[in-house]
Amino acid sequence: MKHALEPAAESLPVTLDDVRRAAARLDGAIIKTPFNKSLTLSQLTGAEIWLKFENLQFTAAFKERGALNKLLCLTAAERAKGVIAASAGNHAQGVAYHAQKLGVPATIVMPSTTPFVKVKQTEEFGAKVVLNGDKFDDTALYAEELAKQHDLTLIHPFDDPEVIAGQGTMALEMLADNPDLDCLVVPVGGGGLISGIAVAAKAIKPEIKIIGVQAERFPSLYRALHDQEYVAKGSSLAEGIAVKTIGKTTFQICRRLVDQVVLVSEDCLERAVSLLLTIEKTVAEGAGAAGLAAILTYPEMFRGKKVGVVLSGGNIDSRLLASLLMRSLIRDGRITQLWVELQDVPGALARVSTIIGSLGGNIIDVSHHRLFTQLPAKETYCDITLETRDQEHLNRILDGLRQAGFVCHIKNADTQGR
Amino acid sequence: MKHALEPAAESLPVTLDDVRRAAARLDGAIIKTPFNKSLTLSQLTGAEIWLKFENLQFTAAFKERGALNKLLCLTAAERAKGVIAASAGNHAQGVAYHAQKLGVPATIVMPSTTPFVKVKQTEEFGAKVVLNGDKFDDTALYAEELAKQHDLTLIHPFDDPEVIAGQGTMALEMLADNPDLDCLVVPVGGGGLISGIAVAAKAIKPEIKIIGVQAERFPSLYRALHDQEYVAKGSSLAEGIAVKTIGKTTFQICRRLVDQVVLVSEDCLERAVSLLLTIEKTVAEGAGAAGLAAILTYPEMFRGKKVGVVLSGGNIDSRLLASLLMRSLIRDGRITQLWVELQDVPGALARVSTIIGSLGGNIIDVSHHRLFTQLPAKETYCDITLETRDQEHLNRILDGLRQAGFVCHIKNADTQGR
Repeated sequence: MKHALEPAAESLPVTLDDVRRAAARLDGAIIKTPFNKSLTLSQLTGAEIWLKFENLQFTAAFKERGALNKLLCLTAAERAKGVIAASAGNHAQGVAYHAQKLGVPATIVMPSTTPFVKVKQTEEFGAKVVLNGDKFDDTALYAEELAKQHDLTLIHPFDDPEVIAGQGTMALEMLADNPDLDCLVVPVGGGGLISGIAVAAKAIKPEIKIIGVQAERFPSLYRALHDQEYVAKGSSLAEGIAVKTIGKTTFQICRRLVDQVVLVSEDCLERAVSLLLTIEKTVAEGAGAAGLAAILTYPEMFRGKKVGVVLSGGNIDSRLLASLLMRSLIRDGRITQLWVELQDVPGALARVSTIIGSLGGNIIDVSHHRLFTQLPAKETYCDITLETRDQEHLNRILDGLRQAGFVCHIKNADTQGR
Repeated sequence: MKHALEPAAESLPVTLDDVRRAAARLDGAIIKTPFNKSLTLSQLTGAEIWLKFENLQFTAAFKERGALNKLLCLTAAERAKGVIAASAGNHAQGVAYHAQKLGVPATIVMPSTTPFVKVKQTEEFGAKVVLNGDKFDDTALYAEELAKQHDLTLIHPFDDPEVIAGQGTMALEMLADNPDLDCLVVPVGGGGLISGIAVAAKAIKPEIKIIGVQAERFPSLYRALHDQEYVAKGSSLAEGIAVKTIGKTTFQICRRLVDQVVLVSEDCLERAVSLLLTIEKTVAEGAGAAGLAAILTYPEMFRGKKVGVVLSGGNIDSRLLASLLMRSLIRDGRITQLWVELQDVPGALARVSTIIGSLGGNIIDVSHHRLFTQLPAKETYCDITLETRDQEHLNRILDGLRQAGFVCHIKNADTQGR
């Protein structure tokens, strides 16, 4: 691992004392989430993996820490006037939940396309939800306007020293639970979480390494550290860290204290979510699984080390999770789409179905095509989606079909939508 | 709640002391799983719900407790000869894992159709896996034969006093963490878990209620308590409690100590798995979610009470989980299959697609049918599978199509496969 730049004379906008004061403020109002060693993931990766289960916060994400610290730093006058935030995600929930508990009026501005269920969840925490802007940038600008108009305190999702100090409290908990950690792997969007963690962890244990993880499609900090420009495009499974631009304050801290930033692919993010679900029985959102994805992508960087992995949140859309699980079944050879050539005579499809059924395969879907085929006239084909117990079982069925004279191919590469 | 029969003179085959001795034996080798109050599920149900996260045991199920207690009760000679068990599920994993740690040779007999991944997992714990029998009854008989042939100790999944005592250790943990519990809700298959829990909990706190939960399709204890016969048929999402017949020893205990047994539907088991995933961010298998399903089904029985809910395991098949999540999206109006009548002229489908797209709907799948329709000639129809943000968004799209003159119907009731 590359060493961080040596500490310079310039003082940083957040200090260990700020983080400790934040921890004292948050005490009792934030869940001290479990920090457990995963035997199976450690065996799988060769690193000693410790998972920080921030998906078990009440709103299922670490964002509550920063939001609550900011709320608790407001003056009585500011509290009475109220707060505002722009977010359709975890920050919205964190602000709304703790503002309600403190009796602070909260306004949350969300993009106009936000699903009703997210609006409702936030309203149930007593917040006033305003829908504005098709793009998030417009939503954020509108929140700034409203803040000025109505004299509300804007709670930025990351670029604020008190928010950063709040997020940093997680590092105190991890190092208290396990002082022997060699490095911390932290997802990075706007940089609030990693900044707070880096300030606290490096002050307590200067030799600890802080590794940031970003999605390949949103490498804001990675590019900024390498003086490269980029234009964010597309979307990511890791919505929570799909942030176009690193913050100013957070960049000032990250440049000094983050040892390295690594990028992970969408495929690997999917695999990490799936592993956390099947092995740890826990639901991580894409961003929450980014730390594990980094270790899977660069195992040699972490081998033999004691690694704290921040599982930052668990709010993943059910549709995403369902399709991710289906794709993992395709990878494991349990769901397969076959393309079978048939002679266009009665009974051909029945023969194929009989062979598959007698070998214990489960046909999920069939499309029989007679018109649009490049096969010779008098031949046709069908697409069969098949469930099998495992790869070996699939192979037995393919052998059975071929021995009976059918030509068949596996189509999965075309049907995974990648 | 009905009162249990008064304790009779007859002594039971398992006592609180047996359970306490088991707890001493298991200490350090079994995870003392978290037992946490769920605020959101409590609000949802009106009961104060405490979840016992047995899905966080190493093999993701409580079965380790009974298996390990049995193993630790063997003589040195019995240990040297080895143990055998019939199971393709959690019992197999529990026996194999702890036998390996203790250096006891283990043989696991599984049905011949067991997926390779389960065989592999069990072999990775050092067990010898034997595949035998298409039906589980045959598998179990074969295990008994092998046990006699090779002088192995058979570890029964439930009908054994030492297994029962091991499972009962969970009750000691729950009552230590929260002595104020009014009742415990426990999934019942063969009855080992509820027997152990009932023995321990009733001895410590005689007024506590013990409520068993079974799947409607496998009501073995329910029927036995009501002197009714039945023939198990079909399958259940709750595989772990899909047991045809209650044990002899377990029935002797349940008849005396279980206050009531309730039955839950497959739909409600699905809903409970889905709620645990989305609210608690935890993966429960069908049997593991049965306790929550019972509270959702009979809320008046639990309202205002402090209820310990045993989340017994987390080993759910990914395909089941994915399709369960998709069905929950259909219920929430986020995935919908529409049936749209079209005039059979060029451009009709394009108009429909344009309307849907301009209103922000996401078309997942289209089938255009021209031949097999009962509509007048010159008309045809298409099936459109549509993703929308929520029910209200779906309604806006339906309105848009109807205002443009299209006749359309929601087809979901036909497509959910129920």
